[in-house]
Amino acid sequence: MAGSTFGKVFRVTTWGESHGTAVGAVVDGCPPGLVLSPEDIQLDLDRRRPGTGPASTPRKEADRVEIMSGLFEGRTTGTPISLVIFNQDAHSKSYDHLKEIFRPGHGDITYLKKYGIRDHRGGGRASARETAGRVAAGAVARKLLAVAGVTVRAGTVALGGITANRRDWPDCDSNPLCCPDPEAAGRMEELIAQVRQEGDTLGGIVEIVAAGVPAGLGEPVFDKLDGELARALMSIGAVKGVEIGAGFAAAALRGSENNDVITPEGFRGNNAGGILAGISSGQEIVVRVAVKPIPSIGREQETVNLANEPVRIKVGGRHDISAIPRIIPVCEAMVALTLADHYLRQKSVRFLL
Amino acid sequence: MAGSTFGKVFRVTTWGESHGTAVGAVVDGCPPGLVLSPEDIQLDLDRRRPGTGPASTPRKEADRVEIMSGLFEGRTTGTPISLVIFNQDAHSKSYDHLKEIFRPGHGDITYLKKYGIRDHRGGGRASARETAGRVAAGAVARKLLAVAGVTVRAGTVALGGITANRRDWPDCDSNPLCCPDPEAAGRMEELIAQVRQEGDTLGGIVEIVAAGVPAGLGEPVFDKLDGELARALMSIGAVKGVEIGAGFAAAALRGSENNDVITPEGFRGNNAGGILAGISSGQEIVVRVAVKPIPSIGREQETVNLANEPVRIKVGGRHDISAIPRIIPVCEAMVALTLADHYLRQKSVRFLL
Amino acid sequence: MAGSTFGKVFRVTTWGESHGTAVGAVVDGCPPGLVLSPEDIQLDLDRRRPGTGPASTPRKEADRVEIMSGLFEGRTTGTPISLVIFNQDAHSKSYDHLKEIFRPGHGDITYLKKYGIRDHRGGGRASARETAGRVAAGAVARKLLAVAGVTVRAGTVALGGITANRRDWPDCDSNPLCCPDPEAAGRMEELIAQVRQEGDTLGGIVEIVAAGVPAGLGEPVFDKLDGELARALMSIGAVKGVEIGAGFAAAALRGSENNDVITPEGFRGNNAGGILAGISSGQEIVVRVAVKPIPSIGREQETVNLANEPVRIKVGGRHDISAIPRIIPVCEAMVALTLADHYLRQKSVRFLL
Amino acid sequence: MAGSTFGKVFRVTTWGESHGTAVGAVVDGCPPGLVLSPEDIQLDLDRRRPGTGPASTPRKEADRVEIMSGLFEGRTTGTPISLVIFNQDAHSKSYDHLKEIFRPGHGDITYLKKYGIRDHRGGGRASARETAGRVAAGAVARKLLAVAGVTVRAGTVALGGITANRRDWPDCDSNPLCCPDPEAAGRMEELIAQVRQEGDTLGGIVEIVAAGVPAGLGEPVFDKLDGELARALMSIGAVKGVEIGAGFAAAALRGSENNDVITPEGFRGNNAGGILAGISSGQEIVVRVAVKPIPSIGREQETVNLANEPVRIKVGGRHDISAIPRIIPVCEAMVALTLADHYLRQKSVRFLL
Repeated sequence: MAGSTFGKVFRVTTWGESHGTAVGAVVDGCPPGLVLSPEDIQLDLDRRRPGTGPASTPRKEADRVEIMSGLFEGRTTGTPISLVIFNQDAHSKSYDHLKEIFRPGHGDITYLKKYGIRDHRGGGRASARETAGRVAAGAVARKLLAVAGVTVRAGTVALGGITANRRDWPDCDSNPLCCPDPEAAGRMEELIAQVRQEGDTLGGIVEIVAAGVPAGLGEPVFDKLDGELARALMSIGAVKGVEIGAGFAAAALRGSENNDVITPEGFRGNNAGGILAGISSGQEIVVRVAVKPIPSIGREQETVNLANEPVRIKVGGRHDISAIPRIIPVCEAMVALTLADHYLRQKSVRFLL
Repeated sequence: MAGSTFGKVFRVTTWGESHGTAVGAVVDGCPPGLVLSPEDIQLDLDRRRPGTGPASTPRKEADRVEIMSGLFEGRTTGTPISLVIFNQDAHSKSYDHLKEIFRPGHGDITYLKKYGIRDHRGGGRASARETAGRVAAGAVARKLLAVAGVTVRAGTVALGGITANRRDWPDCDSNPLCCPDPEAAGRMEELIAQVRQEGDTLGGIVEIVAAGVPAGLGEPVFDKLDGELARALMSIGAVKGVEIGAGFAAAALRGSENNDVITPEGFRGNNAGGILAGISSGQEIVVRVAVKPIPSIGREQETVNLANEPVRIKVGGRHDISAIPRIIPVCEAMVALTLADHYLRQKSVRFLL
Repeated sequence: MAGSTFGKVFRVTTWGESHGTAVGAVVDGCPPGLVLSPEDIQLDLDRRRPGTGPASTPRKEADRVEIMSGLFEGRTTGTPISLVIFNQDAHSKSYDHLKEIFRPGHGDITYLKKYGIRDHRGGGRASARETAGRVAAGAVARKLLAVAGVTVRAGTVALGGITANRRDWPDCDSNPLCCPDPEAAGRMEELIAQVRQEGDTLGGIVEIVAAGVPAGLGEPVFDKLDGELARALMSIGAVKGVEIGAGFAAAALRGSENNDVITPEGFRGNNAGGILAGISSGQEIVVRVAVKPIPSIGREQETVNLANEPVRIKVGGRHDISAIPRIIPVCEAMVALTLADHYLRQKSVRFLL
Repeated sequence: MAGSTFGKVFRVTTWGESHGTAVGAVVDGCPPGLVLSPEDIQLDLDRRRPGTGPASTPRKEADRVEIMSGLFEGRTTGTPISLVIFNQDAHSKSYDHLKEIFRPGHGDITYLKKYGIRDHRGGGRASARETAGRVAAGAVARKLLAVAGVTVRAGTVALGGITANRRDWPDCDSNPLCCPDPEAAGRMEELIAQVRQEGDTLGGIVEIVAAGVPAGLGEPVFDKLDGELARALMSIGAVKGVEIGAGFAAAALRGSENNDVITPEGFRGNNAGGILAGISSGQEIVVRVAVKPIPSIGREQETVNLANEPVRIKVGGRHDISAIPRIIPVCEAMVALTLADHYLRQKSVRFLL
């Protein structure tokens, strides 16, 4: 059943496999009059692009976006915006040796069980390449949010067990991991180099902060803002956990510690992460996601083939050491898409009062 | 904008406030022929009911469910099943002293900012009472899943910083917290008693396990099973984090550690938590949620009133020490609703192969 | 699969069978602050109620609506509004003789083929009684539209082949058929009396006019306003055709005749029926629906039983001669629900320009 | 708000304007394993293509479809199928003289009122060109239905007041109007030639017949099959009315005439048009749509400009005399999309019985 559409008022549908002709997204419901150019989108795509950064694959993709509809004289018209990114460097041949084998930690086996068909060329729809469409659509959402004064940024707060101890966001751009603790960033990069030698991969934690979000976004009880953000982020391939504000740490706090006191100047503390009862409070929205280590490792692993016989594989291919930092703009995109949708949804609520 | 509906094929809409006439749920899309009685639903409702267990409020509600439609001669007919639970013990008067005050950690302030209206009688739609509708609907989902051999159970794995070290699920029913480590359960109950004296409240972690889930459930890329579970659980009032399988711990693992090796006998390990690439793998689905401490504490707190003047309040009222264990059947219900929906969604996928 | 929900921003879910405990509707997404009372809803329900008017069944239902949630101090709160109408006069016994027989023109046979279950007590969910929930929800939509200056009214423009030659809407209330041509109304009532004697039933045409609709409602290309109205009206049991403006007559016109000339004072003519390219133009929206004769006739008919053997039946029971005029408030309700939804949907469109 | 998506299980999203880069459709939810090639789609696109047939515009478009995703080795994979048709002959210049003018009968004025933006290049999203995406997606639906034994065909049954008196569907391909009454077709073609001379245009009626549809499709009460078909067809630009089976004629019949008698051999007659209580009965589904005359006529017309001053225009451009016959494959596509969606929806209903 159809499952490639996200959002209700501001709605994106993505399509495309890693080794097909192109990947893309259709953005429907973007209000007319928004100034938009391919360059706006390219900026975010370039941050997601393979071949840059310490943890990245050498696969090269120009990742040029084309806007095929929905624009007139540099502004959105209110009609669907079709974004297409052609695939240029898809070596499906390099996957031929995997034709008969399930890679551990990958979706090969579950895709086969779901669809009954085996498309062995890379991860197909489960590939990280699918996220290019999300990032392109997210860039449109981000432009819309900018008009409303909302910004979304994300960075690495943990990698391979090394944790950022500070949140100096302005320092974040100084290092390729976009870590708000430059000192920790240095140690993370060292670890990446070491783990690359070992043929292994690393997981980590990304923190996303949305500032300027007006109070009142989120629709109780099933479309609460935190629920929607959780779904948005958990739908990214490598993400295995999502927490808001104090998150799992709140489980060990007392109510007297966890409650954010309200003062005439606003909240004192932000354990709530900017969301109370599923509705934005006007504070910064703070979300963290757990990113699992990339399953394609350079070491030999046990697995089975299509005939369920034990085999040993070494995935090889062209792969990253960690989904971080390339996953960072994807996280930002999913948060931006969620907020844009709820920003527009709220327009129909405060109508009489 | 409407936000009280969950699911696409098996779909539930809930309604009702804590201090109104009734709360309820409409279950639409349940296949015809399912044997169903009020008793099936009552069982789960009774576990959620106030007034039982060590951490609970003394508020008494009979919480009798009435099935108003969709049944004929003890079986579902395929038409909407309307479930209604009348409120019997709604002391809205006891909230009068809160009329002008925002309770810290509650949705009072965000509801007002969203809707522009102040319904001070308890939490209104943000009250835990809203979950009665979820539990009632979830019981129908559970009956459906039982036919497919799927079971969903949950228990307390952490409370106030005390952690369960074992997962002896059969022992779970031996203690009111439904903790799979009876020894830890004992310490948790002692802590509850102590914290009640202190006028404070506790958070914790609930683990939900779904067994017997067939491989292939979940719809890439935005309706992946883990994304849908995350949204389902994060939409519960007190939940601030969701993780699947190894979850946040995976962020500190290497790929070689985190990958679940595939053998002819099945997966070795379940760091994936039963979901790969957003699709169920046939293993047990394991999810944990972080439950924040209940914000209504017995101690005096700083806050502001509607005029944004600083005031001090003591919430009092009739409140629990922890959302655990009453939240347990709610978590089970949300997982059951998600799985039932995806179980039916998959029926339309494997049609030609 | 779930199919009992209508609308996206202003959304209604109905439930209930003719011979169950109750029928009802949940209205989700109604903006907060709308003044609403049971009396507002009762007014429309009374017009739909059995037992009044020349063409009606003698079945008596008090049809008292109860508002179970979503109201506080006489205003909507923004949370779901649950409307329940208990069934009081459900003689399921009188259907026992139909237990084994498919009534011609009824949904008995298709419901069985769809659901595999036979609920012989009246029409079940296919009964006209289901429309009580629509009318109740429609009354809420109508209240919302009134704030925006939109009114919806409908009347009989044809019955049993007799056609209204005038559109004197103020005269409409002077006759029980709500026909804008009182002279034709007289002949229609005579025909009803005659056809009642003959044990037969009558079809007709209802025209619905929505005035004050602002230009700009409707969402190309699949949620165009005319498409949504067509679906809304065709989903009413007895409706077999829907046309907008000139409708089927436009098929025989030339472009030069059919085009509504635009002048500085507005459109000259309204062949478009107030909708151009799926978007409201600011003119009156004019829709007509073809209502088939009620299939339950007093004469003996050929049909088959569950064993597919030929039998003869005389349906008897307590039935109307025509779905008109009781269908009139149902048509109004469906148009009001559609317009309320699109009125709110448009709130998110004009955001930057 | 987003409105370019149709269907729930088998879901299509279209995008693209007449004078942009391309138009396209994303088909999501198509089951895996369906044999599909560009040629399958091209066949239907060619029937919709401008520049063929007696009533058509001389505008030439190759209309070559490209399948950009969702296929592997000639079969669908279950992932989204992206269909793109590049625009090749888009003379937006030829619309420059219309930049300031509202064309009567067109959506120019309502699009401006809705979106606040004026894209004067042809009809933009309101252009008939938008339907290329529908036809491409409909071809996929048709392939799926073929596996289930369902066929959908349509033809002209009235044009400019000339009515087909027969339904000899096999004769339909003998004439370019696809009229099942070849004699009437001859007169229709003469009328087209005459009206072309007069600088005028013609409306007509298209009848769509779906054969082999299994009983049981359609989801009461708001997603009934007839309601969904009505919406699907009414969402096509030129359509102003939809009727099922006897349709508007049923309004003048008695119940004893309109009821389709049920016999052991099946129904006698098909006034129901294959749908009872919103559910397919297993008979042929018969639907007719009223197609208004094309508003772009060769004669001078009164209208206003953006400043609301009266002006006279002669639209000129390259336009058809009638939307028929090019609308025929569009009607077929919308019916096929509706049936494919409901065919898959029903897969989740009959699960226990």
